[in-house]
Amino acid sequence: MENEFLYGCAYYPEYMPYERIDEDFALMQKAGMNVVRIAESTWSTLEPREGQYNFYYIDEVLKRAGQYGLKVIIGTPTYAIPSWLARLDENVLVHTKNGDMKYGKRRIFNLLSDTYIFYGSRIIRKLLEHTVNHPQVIGFQIDNETKHYDNYGAEIQEGFVNFLKSRYSDIEEFNRDYGLAYWSNSIHSWEDFTDISGTINASLSCEFEEFQRETAVNFLKMQAEIINEYKNPNQFITHNFDFEWHKFGADIAQDGYSYGVQDGINHFNAAKSLTHAGTDIYHPTGFKLTGAEIAFCGDEIRNLKNDNYFVLECQSQAFKYWCPFPKQLRLHAFSHIASGADGILYWNWHSIHQSYETYWKGILSHDLKPGRIYDEISQIGNEIKTLTKEKLCIKKNNKIALLVDTLSLSAFKWFPIDKNLSYNDVVRYIYDSLYEKNFECDVVFSECADISKYEAIVCPALYCVSEALLKRLDDFVKNGGILIGGFRSFVADRKVSVYKETLPAGLTECFGIHYDEFTHTLNMKVGGREVKYVAELITIDSATELYPYEHRYWDRYSAITCNEYGRGKAYYIGAYPDKEVLKKVLNQALAEIRKKQNVPISAGFPIITRSGVNEAGEELTYVFNYSLSDADIFIDGDNETGYKDIISGKSYVKGDKIKLEDWDLVVLKKM
Amino acid sequence: MENEFLYGCAYYPEYMPYERIDEDFALMQKAGMNVVRIAESTWSTLEPREGQYNFYYIDEVLKRAGQYGLKVIIGTPTYAIPSWLARLDENVLVHTKNGDMKYGKRRIFNLLSDTYIFYGSRIIRKLLEHTVNHPQVIGFQIDNETKHYDNYGAEIQEGFVNFLKSRYSDIEEFNRDYGLAYWSNSIHSWEDFTDISGTINASLSCEFEEFQRETAVNFLKMQAEIINEYKNPNQFITHNFDFEWHKFGADIAQDGYSYGVQDGINHFNAAKSLTHAGTDIYHPTGFKLTGAEIAFCGDEIRNLKNDNYFVLECQSQAFKYWCPFPKQLRLHAFSHIASGADGILYWNWHSIHQSYETYWKGILSHDLKPGRIYDEISQIGNEIKTLTKEKLCIKKNNKIALLVDTLSLSAFKWFPIDKNLSYNDVVRYIYDSLYEKNFECDVVFSECADISKYEAIVCPALYCVSEALLKRLDDFVKNGGILIGGFRSFVADRKVSVYKETLPAGLTECFGIHYDEFTHTLNMKVGGREVKYVAELITIDSATELYPYEHRYWDRYSAITCNEYGRGKAYYIGAYPDKEVLKKVLNQALAEIRKKQNVPISAGFPIITRSGVNEAGEELTYVFNYSLSDADIFIDGDNETGYKDIISGKSYVKGDKIKLEDWDLVVLKKM
Amino acid sequence: MENEFLYGCAYYPEYMPYERIDEDFALMQKAGMNVVRIAESTWSTLEPREGQYNFYYIDEVLKRAGQYGLKVIIGTPTYAIPSWLARLDENVLVHTKNGDMKYGKRRIFNLLSDTYIFYGSRIIRKLLEHTVNHPQVIGFQIDNETKHYDNYGAEIQEGFVNFLKSRYSDIEEFNRDYGLAYWSNSIHSWEDFTDISGTINASLSCEFEEFQRETAVNFLKMQAEIINEYKNPNQFITHNFDFEWHKFGADIAQDGYSYGVQDGINHFNAAKSLTHAGTDIYHPTGFKLTGAEIAFCGDEIRNLKNDNYFVLECQSQAFKYWCPFPKQLRLHAFSHIASGADGILYWNWHSIHQSYETYWKGILSHDLKPGRIYDEISQIGNEIKTLTKEKLCIKKNNKIALLVDTLSLSAFKWFPIDKNLSYNDVVRYIYDSLYEKNFECDVVFSECADISKYEAIVCPALYCVSEALLKRLDDFVKNGGILIGGFRSFVADRKVSVYKETLPAGLTECFGIHYDEFTHTLNMKVGGREVKYVAELITIDSATELYPYEHRYWDRYSAITCNEYGRGKAYYIGAYPDKEVLKKVLNQALAEIRKKQNVPISAGFPIITRSGVNEAGEELTYVFNYSLSDADIFIDGDNETGYKDIISGKSYVKGDKIKLEDWDLVVLKKM
Repeated sequence: MENEFLYGCAYYPEYMPYERIDEDFALMQKAGMNVVRIAESTWSTLEPREGQYNFYYIDEVLKRAGQYGLKVIIGTPTYAIPSWLARLDENVLVHTKNGDMKYGKRRIFNLLSDTYIFYGSRIIRKLLEHTVNHPQVIGFQIDNETKHYDNYGAEIQEGFVNFLKSRYSDIEEFNRDYGLAYWSNSIHSWEDFTDISGTINASLSCEFEEFQRETAVNFLKMQAEIINEYKNPNQFITHNFDFEWHKFGADIAQDGYSYGVQDGINHFNAAKSLTHAGTDIYHPTGFKLTGAEIAFCGDEIRNLKNDNYFVLECQSQAFKYWCPFPKQLRLHAFSHIASGADGILYWNWHSIHQSYETYWKGILSHDLKPGRIYDEISQIGNEIKTLTKEKLCIKKNNKIALLVDTLSLSAFKWFPIDKNLSYNDVVRYIYDSLYEKNFECDVVFSECADISKYEAIVCPALYCVSEALLKRLDDFVKNGGILIGGFRSFVADRKVSVYKETLPAGLTECFGIHYDEFTHTLNMKVGGREVKYVAELITIDSATELYPYEHRYWDRYSAITCNEYGRGKAYYIGAYPDKEVLKKVLNQALAEIRKKQNVPISAGFPIITRSGVNEAGEELTYVFNYSLSDADIFIDGDNETGYKDIISGKSYVKGDKIKLEDWDLVVLKKM
Repeated sequence: MENEFLYGCAYYPEYMPYERIDEDFALMQKAGMNVVRIAESTWSTLEPREGQYNFYYIDEVLKRAGQYGLKVIIGTPTYAIPSWLARLDENVLVHTKNGDMKYGKRRIFNLLSDTYIFYGSRIIRKLLEHTVNHPQVIGFQIDNETKHYDNYGAEIQEGFVNFLKSRYSDIEEFNRDYGLAYWSNSIHSWEDFTDISGTINASLSCEFEEFQRETAVNFLKMQAEIINEYKNPNQFITHNFDFEWHKFGADIAQDGYSYGVQDGINHFNAAKSLTHAGTDIYHPTGFKLTGAEIAFCGDEIRNLKNDNYFVLECQSQAFKYWCPFPKQLRLHAFSHIASGADGILYWNWHSIHQSYETYWKGILSHDLKPGRIYDEISQIGNEIKTLTKEKLCIKKNNKIALLVDTLSLSAFKWFPIDKNLSYNDVVRYIYDSLYEKNFECDVVFSECADISKYEAIVCPALYCVSEALLKRLDDFVKNGGILIGGFRSFVADRKVSVYKETLPAGLTECFGIHYDEFTHTLNMKVGGREVKYVAELITIDSATELYPYEHRYWDRYSAITCNEYGRGKAYYIGAYPDKEVLKKVLNQALAEIRKKQNVPISAGFPIITRSGVNEAGEELTYVFNYSLSDADIFIDGDNETGYKDIISGKSYVKGDKIKLEDWDLVVLKKM
Repeated sequence: MENEFLYGCAYYPEYMPYERIDEDFALMQKAGMNVVRIAESTWSTLEPREGQYNFYYIDEVLKRAGQYGLKVIIGTPTYAIPSWLARLDENVLVHTKNGDMKYGKRRIFNLLSDTYIFYGSRIIRKLLEHTVNHPQVIGFQIDNETKHYDNYGAEIQEGFVNFLKSRYSDIEEFNRDYGLAYWSNSIHSWEDFTDISGTINASLSCEFEEFQRETAVNFLKMQAEIINEYKNPNQFITHNFDFEWHKFGADIAQDGYSYGVQDGINHFNAAKSLTHAGTDIYHPTGFKLTGAEIAFCGDEIRNLKNDNYFVLECQSQAFKYWCPFPKQLRLHAFSHIASGADGILYWNWHSIHQSYETYWKGILSHDLKPGRIYDEISQIGNEIKTLTKEKLCIKKNNKIALLVDTLSLSAFKWFPIDKNLSYNDVVRYIYDSLYEKNFECDVVFSECADISKYEAIVCPALYCVSEALLKRLDDFVKNGGILIGGFRSFVADRKVSVYKETLPAGLTECFGIHYDEFTHTLNMKVGGREVKYVAELITIDSATELYPYEHRYWDRYSAITCNEYGRGKAYYIGAYPDKEVLKKVLNQALAEIRKKQNVPISAGFPIITRSGVNEAGEELTYVFNYSLSDADIFIDGDNETGYKDIISGKSYVKGDKIKLEDWDLVVLKKM
């Protein structure tokens, strides 16, 4: 198994209208699949009544999987509970800012409920005892897209106060640290701490959100500890991390896509309990397929364990927005691999005939017959199998890091730049500009990132920064690094308190600028193009102006600057210019870094390149054509012995043209 | 009375700022009116304190109505309750998904409350005892626009579980039928059935909505049974059914109009308790008057009892959107008649000076003086009186049926095609296209319709279809019928479970097509025009393609097809094309049927024709000009002895021109 | 002090990250400031635990203020409470229509709570005892922007029923007056009075809103009575009245601006408890600065006490929309003075680093260093000091009154003309048209206004009018006044009951018109330009038509009319025409009045003139250039001895040109 790329799907025989395990497994095997993920969300089937167990479907799957060359990932079933558990203790359902949840949905539980933890642990143990030694079982997925579920219940609030008490022996220090004198919110006895859901204090509220995220981290840790009691050394523990979901379309239909940094849990902290990172990635397709979500999410997940990861869920077909054009499914799959995936599981095998996700369709439509989607997925599966994991899967060695931060995400909800611009909008605006220019980067969590290993650091909306990180960033530039700071970065400390120093706090010398005013952008341009959302009115101290504001009054201030500082350079982007302007700045800042990496193709979106080194130690560059149109691309990497497309086997040298059809790809190996 | 067309209004002397019954009745009589509807909504006046009765206004009306030639319809007052009743038992107010209602509004009651039923029945009996034998009283309206009021209270939930228990002796069969294994929602003991308002299971939720609708049906049945104990044989029982309301404008102002199939009650089931169908129809006017709502609602209500019906409420003037142009009120009235109305009552006589519906104005404005509106209504009344009911009122004999379904309506809320497209949007899109092409149809409830009497069946968004109906539709085509199936029809069974068979379920042979994918419609056309919302990717088996998709990739699939099957034809419309394209397809499918009907005018909107046979057995065609501009229309029905306009008395033969002024009409009698 | 213009700011040392009172006071003094407002909102600092007091910051401010020439206004701290008080009695937090409030926000209290009143009174007394005799203390601000906070709690409802009982000995008279028979809402025993929050009766609901406003009035009265027990005769009592807030931008950011008549309290009634009126005025700036809000709010506040007033809060910089262009802050300040302000206090001194209003920035940015904003405010302060209060501050003597009304505001929420048009939209549409034409007016509360002292009365959307006022208006015109009535005026009485007389009620003879229909305005024009929202279909009796409707059908009706009546004239504006058309009508009606006032500059927006008489008895006209561009203005007032700009000292006579730079001003004194 270890040298096999995992290719498979989620499988729920419990949801099937009739028994067809053998028929399904034969089709999977024919499609080149080697793994199914089972059991998650089926607690009421596994334990129909409190203390009564029924492993019929698990047993059937395990019994037959081997015959069809399928390995099995066991999912713990805790993210959806039986109604008997809700009846047992109403406190199992989470109490949120918007009230108590009613039984019915998944992922609406109080992660601190003793009852939930007791019964959840018990069913995990029962399931483990029943499956852990089966030879087909290669690993476990704990829970499913776990988050804190906006918990504002009594336990979490009590826990939060205890956490604060333990941190502050002097309550007046607490009042000062959180700025509680404002609007008479200071307390002078811990008993006066009121329901946190009413607070208007952003510092306190953001602290609570970090605390909420830790409850989700701890819940996964607890599950991992149980698994560790049982599992065999070669079995993995994974989890399917998901991302901020970007909704559109109807409320009930679950349309939308993976968009940005997850608000409900801190991925980095949670990943410590796992042996292998995993993720669920969904994205627009059809005319709107760009690969940006596959890249962004992959660039984040890969850095959790600094290793390859499983895509535990990705889309085959689904509701109307996810009907892929011919060949796009193949582009999806190879894009995941090019970001560092060593496994791809589709969600899910079959379309479900009732209940809720009826049109979150599977590989098979509701008629349960192989159709166009099955055929394409089957072609991909057999192609991957032939090419082998050893050749395809790559380790990345990116030289650019983009810093993200859940605390800054929270702070942006209190202090938005604009009603139409979230923290993740800024992150994606900058990430996508990098992506479209083929600057590959690692997406890392700011405060715990090892920034010293990079050559450039990009900070989009990094609002809350510790003094320690400010110092590290300053040193980074002094020591030759390139720092790119975006507007509304370096503003507040980790208590969401705006720095008393001139902004950008702690980095005025590094950037060679300062500002204390910012404005909206009516009738304002930068680089001849409209600028949106915000403009910081920057005064230059030692920096060079790259772009001024074009405006009746604010033209005396700078929009974008560059400063030579120590042995490095610091770019500051004080506004939200047009993406074309931003890309020019990024190119100016980062072109040298890419040049050193010697990528064989120089191009921008819709031609996307993603590079790394495979298990055989070969340097690969995946080249994707994210376009309706054919594209001619030219080799300009100057490797003497040229490049070989490991799919077609064709060889190329500098100057050679490759014709890429719509949505097609090549994988160039440096010879 | 029986041979008089009912022409009148709702009358509330209780709401008047001063006593003016004689003055009002004299004005009514002068306006050609012969009926008033009274008593509904006045419970707190009739029974000011529990068990104390006051019939002053009833008595005064009955005493004087006869002098002015006015008959009286007594409305039961139950749709608005006195506050003492709410105080007696808080459970009288409905508990909805959004919480408990507060006293104040009408129609917010728990139809299963024993208290409500006890006191409601008592006031009805008192009112009946007091009025039933009065010679002016011709009939009774029970309650008012009754619906289930989103009841999620304890009684209805208990009733629902009992209903399920009685249907399923084996709870596991219940789990299977509703697909409850999904997300651990299965229950293995009826005690584990939780609050239905939390469910995410569409099958269960839609079943509950059907159950809710039945509570409204039963409430009307209960009231009818009481009336039947008292009433004289020649007195009727009616009810004013209303339609899904299309809101626009301000929230508080009650602007909007009658739009589509009613969600809150099943009209067909409820009508069984009535002796005569009745309805409330409100519609846009001014530049936006098309007559489509008058036609749609009439075509539905007429089929409830397969007979003529009362328009118990229609608009005179009202808030700013309902200020009719000169002559439009007359067009409204004759359009109702042309759909099968044998009575028209305006809501209401006078504008109310206070409270809530202050600007839902009556025939008289707040100054209570006859004005322009009164004058026009008076002219209409005297014209109808002169022409007589015998000549004007018609029975229809439509050959086309359009199938509607409350269960499909519910299912569309769970599985919408698009956030901007409801079930009723699809119904109206197709109905209105028929209407604008002057294809008259019956709007009938799918599962209980006698489809065999029609020559063509049209199915818009008929999502949930029983196997029995699928079979009947198949037979219908085999036997020579024309079937027109719209997208998202024939998908699921009556448990809202998607069929496991290839779609369109049970009718792939009939339509000669199949599909298993559908997509959104970006950059897609059909017939050279934009297509919206959804496109099913249809593969032809035996059908003929009428329109392919015009699209970069999906042009290999068909959008609209026609299949010869048995002795009939089956058209399938797999997308939402521009209405002009849809109308061409409808014309191709249905032109033969109209040709046989020999309508004297061939035209389309804004010229509308509506035909039938009057009590004298004469074949009439109403011809309306729904336009600001004069229109020249030409006789092309080839009846040898020609046609006569029963209003002007002019005679016409084939080829003759009739000049119709703006908003004018003729009523052509086949000679 | 009495002859000094108050120039200063709100100051919260409690919110500061470190002690800097001396540093701050030195900067204030240098900026020409002479006053700080302190203590409000700091209850939890002043009384950290129940009954324990701490006046440290108060003491420090008072101790040092004198050294820097600063006087002190003490704000009572009641608008934000300590959490211990919320814990003591949960009834302190207001119960609103949308539920109970949670502790955290300011201004969410139950003004009728005994607990709140007891502890609130006690802290005020303690604060008074501590500060009242300090020589720097010149006056007191009671509470802060007090409103009724949507109180629907038990006390207020009980109070409301008692109020009704005391008014009606016969409950049937109560039913009749409020039209309660409608929808069975009549009650026949006071015990049957139900929770007012459920009512659908607009008359009752609007009465309740007036009652709610009185609770806020009484709360301020109670505070004033306490102050009066303690204060010295030369100390003032003021309050910062605010206005309906116009939101835009993000929800959490407190962007928006002062827009119209305050819904939550009746300013006129509340001002009776004050010795000096005060207000908070915030407005758009940058490209959107017009001065209209400064003028509108000033024109209302000035008339509360018929005297000058303090601007207790106005903006320096703040969130991104309030970043003023260079020179705009000076224009703000002089515009306040030109409306009658005799004090200007900025909110606030320093930007706050945490909590909620972090980006409602102060004069100092978060770095607490003097920057551009400080420099401009400093320049203004020193300029005002030099010019002196005696020269600058003016009394106004306007001849035009614009009538506003809180009851009509409430009624418009029940009976809106259009979902996009509020009462205040209409008020501002008409006020702003006057303002842009430089017709200065007093904004006065309709029912208690002394209209006899004016030459013209303008009534925008004056929906609810007493019979007495109708009579006064009729007499006003008869006696030579000019009356301008806007659409939806003179419709209902003070019970929000539409008059039974023909509209405009009681004034048909005066206006020489009548109407009983109104309509929307699709495809309609007036004066060749689009008309919006509503068109009353006016029939002329004796008036002259100024504008007809331009419409396919409604051209037979008039839109705008003028009637000579007695010795005066009455204009009626029956629709919402384009502002240019409205301004032409206003000009026709009011030009004579202005001519008599002999203003030295005839111009319209962006040149704004504001006139009055200073303490020295000199006639001043402030002339402002609200524009990005320079403007040439010409003296055309024919004062023989000419005019002198008191700022530059330059003299002008008729025909002279003054060049005004962007955002610049002159103050012309009649010589």
